[in-house]
Amino acid sequence: MMRTRPLKVALLGCGVVGSEVARIMTTHADDLAARIGAPVELAGVAVRRPSKVREGIPAELVTTDATALVKRGDIDVVVEVIGGIEPARTLITTAFEHGASVVSANKALLAQDGAALHAAAGEHDKDLYYEAAVAGAIPLIRPLRESLAGDKINRVMGIVNGTTNYILDKMDSTGAGYQEALDEATALGYAEADPTADVEAFDAAAKAAILAGIAFHTRVRLDDVYREGMTEVTAADFASAKEMGCTIKLLAICERAADGGSVTARVHPAMIPLSHPLANVRGAYNAVFVESDAAGQLMFYGPGAGGAPTASAVLGDLVAVCRNKLSGATGPGESAYAALPVSPMGDVVTRYHISLDVADKPGVLAQVATVFAEHGVSIDTVRQQGKDGEASLVVVTHRASDASLNGTVEALRGLDTVRGVASIMRVEGE
Amino acid sequence: MMRTRPLKVALLGCGVVGSEVARIMTTHADDLAARIGAPVELAGVAVRRPSKVREGIPAELVTTDATALVKRGDIDVVVEVIGGIEPARTLITTAFEHGASVVSANKALLAQDGAALHAAAGEHDKDLYYEAAVAGAIPLIRPLRESLAGDKINRVMGIVNGTTNYILDKMDSTGAGYQEALDEATALGYAEADPTADVEAFDAAAKAAILAGIAFHTRVRLDDVYREGMTEVTAADFASAKEMGCTIKLLAICERAADGGSVTARVHPAMIPLSHPLANVRGAYNAVFVESDAAGQLMFYGPGAGGAPTASAVLGDLVAVCRNKLSGATGPGESAYAALPVSPMGDVVTRYHISLDVADKPGVLAQVATVFAEHGVSIDTVRQQGKDGEASLVVVTHRASDASLNGTVEALRGLDTVRGVASIMRVEGE
Repeated sequence: MMRTRPLKVALLGCGVVGSEVARIMTTHADDLAARIGAPVELAGVAVRRPSKVREGIPAELVTTDATALVKRGDIDVVVEVIGGIEPARTLITTAFEHGASVVSANKALLAQDGAALHAAAGEHDKDLYYEAAVAGAIPLIRPLRESLAGDKINRVMGIVNGTTNYILDKMDSTGAGYQEALDEATALGYAEADPTADVEAFDAAAKAAILAGIAFHTRVRLDDVYREGMTEVTAADFASAKEMGCTIKLLAICERAADGGSVTARVHPAMIPLSHPLANVRGAYNAVFVESDAAGQLMFYGPGAGGAPTASAVLGDLVAVCRNKLSGATGPGESAYAALPVSPMGDVVTRYHISLDVADKPGVLAQVATVFAEHGVSIDTVRQQGKDGEASLVVVTHRASDASLNGTVEALRGLDTVRGVASIMRVEGE
Repeated sequence: MMRTRPLKVALLGCGVVGSEVARIMTTHADDLAARIGAPVELAGVAVRRPSKVREGIPAELVTTDATALVKRGDIDVVVEVIGGIEPARTLITTAFEHGASVVSANKALLAQDGAALHAAAGEHDKDLYYEAAVAGAIPLIRPLRESLAGDKINRVMGIVNGTTNYILDKMDSTGAGYQEALDEATALGYAEADPTADVEAFDAAAKAAILAGIAFHTRVRLDDVYREGMTEVTAADFASAKEMGCTIKLLAICERAADGGSVTARVHPAMIPLSHPLANVRGAYNAVFVESDAAGQLMFYGPGAGGAPTASAVLGDLVAVCRNKLSGATGPGESAYAALPVSPMGDVVTRYHISLDVADKPGVLAQVATVFAEHGVSIDTVRQQGKDGEASLVVVTHRASDASLNGTVEALRGLDTVRGVASIMRVEGE
């Protein structure tokens, strides 16, 4: 059944991921051919710096003109591992126009312009696959989009950024502060020189948008995702978490509202019980929990980044797209038929852990409790600690909307007896 | 893009899984239609006892003549959830001959006759999907077959039987013996009246054969899988495991040999360190670890059985097969091109925990150690405990072949000073 004309692959970008893709395409050419049903050939590699030595890639394949490469007309699949919005976006749409399907690892672009890119793919009857865009090597997009296609997904909650998980895990296990843990992550190569995209959760928010869109068959854009970074998580927060039998993780959470009529997507640090499987995800690993009507609770765990793991996901997509090409079909495209409204953060319902600095005098607890009650936020537990005329109150609430909680906190700040709100953290995973 | 002629589905079997499939097809008809691109219609349900009331299934769809149903000629997809070898096998091949693709949850049949069934599907250009056959709702076959299609899988190790995991978890957490834990599992519905298929690991062995075949692109039959049940695991074994910082799980392990030239598949109880993620898989849950060259370590976790979880997997396949039908293509079929030899159990290399009852006199340890050395089995640790002229020796070995270990044990049994071999258990997950 093997055909002899090879399928031609253009590689855009040859950094950590791209060079690994090229390496595996070369070293595992026979396996890939057997699995696809035709040989695949690396037909061109577009790079920014052609002078850089690239082991194993013939010099004549290297070009700086990515546009010309995708316009060649004989390319079957374009693998885009450049990242960022432009020129990736234009190159991808140009690829579709010139007859190629696309495999991309570009979370930022998919989160921002996924709908338009899917439309362009559909218009030209081409595939757009991007398993590598979320949680690296972990099969997640294909399971959500295909394995669970007959189920109703209600919740996707996960650790989708390895850098921040490394930092939080370090803070948890050593008692280090944020800056100290970040410095170590940077020294070890887990964090980039400018860690903003990771620690301010832009990266995780893009992944949340992609996951929510697929899980709920609804377009969810990056702007729809509530985003809160983890730079303000302190050693004191970890101490508070430990007292509750919890740890702190940066979680991406996509939920269907209880009435099924809307969805939310958010990324923020949260306390989760140590008994929750996500609590035990260590180092730079990623893991995603999925809850659905019929399947129940599933978890997917693995390395969330890195050259080889990301290349594994890219190559899995490459094989699928090549198989589709040979059979004259395309895989599942965008599924956004449900078109559910994406609710704002204020509608999210969860639990909260609030630390207040208060005056150490009688009646303060009653005052504070009254404010919670007035805003419809029910208190689960409260703990009072006094020291030298100052005192702290730690309140853990039952489930309440973010809007109610915000109203409560604003009112608490207006109380004379409340000196300050030391921290507010959501509690998830129960 | 929606076409109006519905795709017709014949359901073979309407027990715990089948009735759930029918229910979801009815209650989620609009979602399924949107995701497939055409409505799906339940065209017939073959059962053994037509008198049994089946809520939500119109009486006119129910038949006892499964053969006539699959021969109708207008059926697009046959869903087989009868289980067992016959009549399931003949019904599936008949379905292919009469123009239908097949979704099956039948692990025993796939493990025994997977190659012939795939060949029949291929001959008629039809799909054969069976995600539900392994680990219930957990997406595993699709990730192995598609997501990791560009990677090289070296190891699949997992808990793939919920009944035995429930029993072992109970023994671990309560100190109960095997029979007591089994009785509780039976009372709670986790074990069947005749638990043989589960506790003697026939079920897990079938799943190991399927997983090994897909992971290594090699035909692995049920007979190729070494199988050891868990009925002889004792409370004393759990006590020994605890002393080593381990617990005991019934593991299905599919491995590529270090030289890459052969594979093995086996199912047996084994000690694994508490720090290993599989050690924390509780109750009737399943989880499977996958190790590959590029992706590294992945884990998939979820409910391994039950009507709704299994139905979720069946419906995911149903959506995929229907999509394929509409696009005039078929999904990936059997991939057995690698055709690696399946080595016997004697070639498997792992570690061992051996408890010996020995005479409590000088020189016994030296004698025993000499036997291990003569068979090339290197000792990691040894612990000696004496009591009233009797003594026990607990030996933990370094990695050695099963054949060497067996030779060692045989020779130990020949020593005058060795009164008996109390237990031998493999140690995995390090």
